[in-house]
Amino acid sequence: MMSSRAERLAQNFADGVDAVVVMNASEPFLDTTYWYLTGSTSGTFEGARAVVTSDGSLHTFVSILEEETARSSSGEVHVYNTDSERKQQMQDVLKGCRKIGVNFSSTAYGSVEWMKSFLEPDVSIVDATKIIADTIAIKDEKEIELIEKACRISSTVANELPDMIHEGATERDVASEMGIRMLRLGGTGLAFDTIAAFGAHSSEPHYSPADYALKKGDAALFDFGSKYERYCSDLTRTIFLGEPDPVLKRAYEVVRLAQLAGLSEMKDGADASAPDLAARKVIEESEFKGRFIHSFGHGIGMNIHEAIYVSPKSQQKLRAGNVVSAEPGVYIPGVGGIRIEDTVLITEDGYRLLTDYDHSYTVV
Amino acid sequence: MMSSRAERLAQNFADGVDAVVVMNASEPFLDTTYWYLTGSTSGTFEGARAVVTSDGSLHTFVSILEEETARSSSGEVHVYNTDSERKQQMQDVLKGCRKIGVNFSSTAYGSVEWMKSFLEPDVSIVDATKIIADTIAIKDEKEIELIEKACRISSTVANELPDMIHEGATERDVASEMGIRMLRLGGTGLAFDTIAAFGAHSSEPHYSPADYALKKGDAALFDFGSKYERYCSDLTRTIFLGEPDPVLKRAYEVVRLAQLAGLSEMKDGADASAPDLAARKVIEESEFKGRFIHSFGHGIGMNIHEAIYVSPKSQQKLRAGNVVSAEPGVYIPGVGGIRIEDTVLITEDGYRLLTDYDHSYTVV
Repeated sequence: MMSSRAERLAQNFADGVDAVVVMNASEPFLDTTYWYLTGSTSGTFEGARAVVTSDGSLHTFVSILEEETARSSSGEVHVYNTDSERKQQMQDVLKGCRKIGVNFSSTAYGSVEWMKSFLEPDVSIVDATKIIADTIAIKDEKEIELIEKACRISSTVANELPDMIHEGATERDVASEMGIRMLRLGGTGLAFDTIAAFGAHSSEPHYSPADYALKKGDAALFDFGSKYERYCSDLTRTIFLGEPDPVLKRAYEVVRLAQLAGLSEMKDGADASAPDLAARKVIEESEFKGRFIHSFGHGIGMNIHEAIYVSPKSQQKLRAGNVVSAEPGVYIPGVGGIRIEDTVLITEDGYRLLTDYDHSYTVV
Repeated sequence: MMSSRAERLAQNFADGVDAVVVMNASEPFLDTTYWYLTGSTSGTFEGARAVVTSDGSLHTFVSILEEETARSSSGEVHVYNTDSERKQQMQDVLKGCRKIGVNFSSTAYGSVEWMKSFLEPDVSIVDATKIIADTIAIKDEKEIELIEKACRISSTVANELPDMIHEGATERDVASEMGIRMLRLGGTGLAFDTIAAFGAHSSEPHYSPADYALKKGDAALFDFGSKYERYCSDLTRTIFLGEPDPVLKRAYEVVRLAQLAGLSEMKDGADASAPDLAARKVIEESEFKGRFIHSFGHGIGMNIHEAIYVSPKSQQKLRAGNVVSAEPGVYIPGVGGIRIEDTVLITEDGYRLLTDYDHSYTVV
C-alpha cells in the first residue's frame, strides 16, 4: 500500500529531527504544505498548524471555524477556541520532541517565535526546508493528474492565442480574456498573474500587462498558468503580429533549439544543472550570448515556484516524479524578448511534456 | 503637499526604530508592503527588499530581472546580481541603524535569519507589525479609488446572482462564472477563492465550492471579491432558491438587523469593538444566540485580511480612511448559514459603503 504523505515526509526526516511543524499565518502567508499533508481541497486554514511526528502520524490544529472542513481531510484534528488552547494542544503533541523542523522559507518569523514561547528552552528548531522540498518534489499519481488537468487548460488557451490578438489589442485586455477562458475551461484560479507583454515590453521577464496596444511587427509574449484544485501549470508562448524584426525570428529559433537541448538532458538521476547548461550553451554560442538572464527551470506544484533549481549551479538531481518548467529565453532590451516554456514531468527514462501547444514560429 | 508613503511610515516609527525592512521571499510569501511603498503595479519582486529609514527615504533592492520595472516606481533602486551583492547593498544602507523593524507576521523566518547574518550582533530586530499596520490602515485617495473600483465590480456581480442560480447549478459552476464576470468587468484577479456554499454547506464559514447542486429551499451563500490593481473588495450575499426553512428567513432578518446595528457604530474615533458588540447584541438577544461564531469585521486593502480587528475584544480605534468589512452571520449546522457583508470606508462622521447591491431578503 502507498504510504501516506505524512509517512513519506517522516521517511525524509534527517539529523535527528523528531517532528516537522507547519504553521499558517494569515492570507497570503499560508503554507501549501498544510494542504499537501491534509489533502484538504477546501478551507482557508489561517492560523492552522500541522505536526508530523517521526512515526508518520499527522496532527492538525484548526480553529472552530474550520472544524467541519478539517474533519473531512487527513490527520487527527484538534480544534481550538483560543490561542492558549492551541498552544496547549501543540505542546501535548510535541511533548518529548527535542529537535523540531520548520520550513524557514514559508513560515512567518512571528509563528516561529510563537512556538518558542511554549517549548522548553533546550528544544532546538531547525530548518526543514530540505526535508519538505525533497518530499513534495516527488509528485504522487493524484498530484500528477491534477497538474495535468491544469496544463491541459493552459495549453488550450495557448493554442487559441493567435486568434485572440489583433492590432490595437491591449496587454491587459488579452490577459483578462485568457483568465476568463481558463476559468471557463474549468480552471479553479490562476497559478499567477498572467504576463502579457507586447513589443519591447516582452524583454522584461516579469512585466505586468498594461495599456500598451499591439502593433505590427511586435512580439507578443504570454506567460501564464491555470490552477486546478490548488495545483499549478506554467507555460509561455511567444507569437508575432506580422513579421517582426529578423533578429526576433532568429531569436525564436535559437530559444526553441535551446529548449530542445535542455529537454534532452531531462531524466531520473540527471544533474538538475544539465538541462540549463545544455540550453545555455546553445544560446551562448549564438549571437544572443549573454541574453539568457534567468534559469532554465524550477519546480512546479501547489506553488508556482518549488525548490527544484534547474540552473547552472544547481547541486540537485532530477528524480522521476519531479515536475519542472523548461523555459529558456532571450531578451533584447528595447526590441523584444522570446521565451518558450513547458511544464515537464521527469520520468525514469526521460521526460513527458504536460503542456501541449503549437511551438512553431507563429506570425498572425 | 501630501507626504510619500515611506514618509508616512517613518512618521509612525516608535521605540527608537531606525529603519523598517520589508523582505519578499518566494511566491506566495510576498509582502504587500513592498508594493504599498514602491507604488509599483507590476513585477513579481521575489527576493526583493525595501528599506525605509527614519528620514522617510525609501531604498529598494531588486534582482536584475526586475530592474526596468523597479525604476518606474518610487524609491532609490539598488540592483543586485548575486546574494552577496544584495547583502552588501543592504549593509551599506542600514549602516548606523541600531534598531531595525521587521513585520514578523509577513516575513519568512529565513529572511530575518538572512538579515541577521550580515548585521552587527548588537543590532536589535524588533516587530514592526504595528508600525506598518497603523500606516497602511489609513488609505490614501489613490487607494480608496482602487478599492472602490474593486467593490463596484463585485457589487455588479452580486446583483446578477439571482439570475445566475437555478435548480441543479453546482457551487463550483456558479463560483467559476462569478470569477469570469469579475474579470470581464475589468477585475485584475480574485481577492480570494470565491466561496459558493449551498444548502447545509452554507453553515461552514470557510467552505470551498464543490459539486453540490442547488435544490429548492436551499440558501445560497456567496462570499467573494474582485481585485483591482492589487486592491481587494470583500462582499457576501446570501439568497434563496425557493422559500427556505422559515428559520433561515428569520435568520436573514436578524443578520441584516445586526449588520445595520454594527454599521451605526462606525465612525472616526469609535472603538473598533463597538460595531461587533452592537451586532452581536442583536444576535445574542434573538433565538440565534451563540450562532455568530466569528468577528464582525477586518481591515481590507492589498490584503484581504488586514490588521483592523472589528471584534469583541479589539483594543483599536477606528480611524477615517480605514476600510473594513461588516459581516455578521448566523450558522445553523445541517440547515444553513446566513452572512451579509459589505466593504466599508470609515469617515470623519460615520461610514460610506463601498459595496452596493440589493440587501433585501431575496427568493429566486
